[in-house]
Amino acid sequence: VLTKRIAVLPGDGIGPEVCAEALKVLEAVSERFGHFFELNIQLMGACAIDATGDPLPETTLEACYAADAILLGAIGDPKYDNDPSAKVRPEQGLLRLRKSLGLFANIRPVTAYDVLLEHSPLKADRISGVDMLIYRELTGGIYFGEKGRTADGAYDNCYYSRAEIERVAHLAFESAVTRRNKLTLVDKANVLETSRLWREVVQQIAPQYPGVAVDYLFVDNAAMQMILNPKQFDVILTENMFGDIISDEASVIAGSLGLLPSASVGETSALFEPIHGSYPQAKGLGIANPIATILSVAMMLEHFGMQEEAALVKEAVDYTLDKNVLTPELNKTNPFTTEQVGSFIAHYV
Amino acid sequence: VLTKRIAVLPGDGIGPEVCAEALKVLEAVSERFGHFFELNIQLMGACAIDATGDPLPETTLEACYAADAILLGAIGDPKYDNDPSAKVRPEQGLLRLRKSLGLFANIRPVTAYDVLLEHSPLKADRISGVDMLIYRELTGGIYFGEKGRTADGAYDNCYYSRAEIERVAHLAFESAVTRRNKLTLVDKANVLETSRLWREVVQQIAPQYPGVAVDYLFVDNAAMQMILNPKQFDVILTENMFGDIISDEASVIAGSLGLLPSASVGETSALFEPIHGSYPQAKGLGIANPIATILSVAMMLEHFGMQEEAALVKEAVDYTLDKNVLTPELNKTNPFTTEQVGSFIAHYV
Ligand SMILES: CC(C)[C@H](C(=O)O)[C@@H](O)C(=O)O
Ligand SMILES: CC(C)[C@H](C(=O)O)[C@@H](O)C(=O)O
Repeated sequence: VLTKRIAVLPGDGIGPEVCAEALKVLEAVSERFGHFFELNIQLMGACAIDATGDPLPETTLEACYAADAILLGAIGDPKYDNDPSAKVRPEQGLLRLRKSLGLFANIRPVTAYDVLLEHSPLKADRISGVDMLIYRELTGGIYFGEKGRTADGAYDNCYYSRAEIERVAHLAFESAVTRRNKLTLVDKANVLETSRLWREVVQQIAPQYPGVAVDYLFVDNAAMQMILNPKQFDVILTENMFGDIISDEASVIAGSLGLLPSASVGETSALFEPIHGSYPQAKGLGIANPIATILSVAMMLEHFGMQEEAALVKEAVDYTLDKNVLTPELNKTNPFTTEQVGSFIAHYV
Repeated sequence: VLTKRIAVLPGDGIGPEVCAEALKVLEAVSERFGHFFELNIQLMGACAIDATGDPLPETTLEACYAADAILLGAIGDPKYDNDPSAKVRPEQGLLRLRKSLGLFANIRPVTAYDVLLEHSPLKADRISGVDMLIYRELTGGIYFGEKGRTADGAYDNCYYSRAEIERVAHLAFESAVTRRNKLTLVDKANVLETSRLWREVVQQIAPQYPGVAVDYLFVDNAAMQMILNPKQFDVILTENMFGDIISDEASVIAGSLGLLPSASVGETSALFEPIHGSYPQAKGLGIANPIATILSVAMMLEHFGMQEEAALVKEAVDYTLDKNVLTPELNKTNPFTTEQVGSFIAHYV
């Protein structure tokens, strides 16, 4: 019997709904395997601003520090989007959380499920069999560099140290070794000095992983290759800003944002969240797909070393896809609700 | 009778082949309409490094200054790609040319030709009817900011002044007015200070174009929307780095890179080039598609105010597409050579 403390941040929009289903599945895992998951549910995002004035209140941050893992729903509310220069915004909470907990690597698997090929904007033959893992550096680069205004302009500084590149690169290489032994660094080394440093560091590390074939792609070319021939990718490694763009682009392959989980990991903390946003228009309608959050729980279980448990959750999701027990965006003719999909998966477990 | 001076930079790889066909078409226009095009052919790129040690020799730059327009083939050679930190590289010539001539706006039309829908990686219903124009700022941002190394890291600075944003924004708005009156600014205003400035400036300018509906998209979302629903876009406006990525991503819609032209314009100079690269593997094989370069010539004619001439060249290209007189990537069963496609189009003109 293992005990794990999990900080749960349901967040905004559909976040609470999809988290509720994921927790149902976690509960089923707990019963089946006899683990004990201690949940600490906290505010973050727009709901936290509304309640406390701060998107990441101190109690939330403390709960995250104290936890073995964090489950996040989604954050963001349209009332903060229209004024990007507003002093307090939900995203700041997320960025501060990443930085405070040192979550330096964002990991996103992209898989093209065969049953969903018809839903992808891409032709089936291009994407059938896609199975890639994107490692995005998450606490450095232009996101966290000095930024500000001058008399007649604005600036953002992009900085990377060798150490920041090395730690995420090692994670990516280690994962490539357990997969198809291919790593693609996405950069803009023909223009940026930081990209040249990324290339140098990756070239220096590569000999420690002699089985891994390393490939270098300029980000503009990568943005094309992602659509033209996504099957070529195994592990992708890239810096923060390029990773933000490329991983969202890659997400369209799967046929639905509602299927894609992610992990953000550091030395001592790990956060798991669906990649879809808070989708406020869908809030309360029972149409939000809980699968991405449930698969995020599977990634969390893997992180706990609970491989069998994680495999069972993924098997349950496969079964659900097979049986077409899916929310409206994937099943127009006979749609199931968020709650029904969650219960179906929890029941299988 | 008009006389125009054109600096021609055939460049590397397939550049010279596709330029030769484009010049054939220009010659046909000249005969038909009685214009005089004075050509000044110069070295740029890897071929210029090989000949002079400099990717942009002084004589080339002078020819460009003296010209009414510049036609560029493509630059780049694999022998310079493997070592991105090499002191002299072909790309430097291009970046220096853009900066020296003040080519601050890169303009790329993306059109989904119906006859080519089968070649696109995207499903036909998603892209049929796509007709967008991307305005990318080309001489500012992180490309041209201060960059360098520190003791244990590297940095690239991104800076934009209001004036840099205003001039390209005005071009984009002016073009939206002649099209479907929609402008989408792509930025990352939830993270970057420069993006917040872009948004501010665009919001300030917008009232001068009351007919234009303005839309704001974060770049990660834009990378998804480009594939999920590209028909929503009319004019896209964005900064240099995001434009590099988004415009290359958009190029996959058309079904072939070989069809897409571009213009880079400034106060006093204008450069026209196909968006495909030097494609060295295809050099000399007669398989390179000259259409992108020929359509770049059409954009050049429009720039000269020769609307009728430009329309005729585009009509000739449509006819060629209809008749399937196309290079192998678009016509596998009965392919034509670069030279045959060029002659067919020139003959129509
Ligand atoms: C909300 C935003 C700040 C965030 C980012 O850009 O990192 C999001 O797009 C993501 O990818 O998690
Ligand atoms: C060759 C390179 C420097 C260039 C750029 O990044 O601007 C190219 O990708 C382009 O888009 O014209």
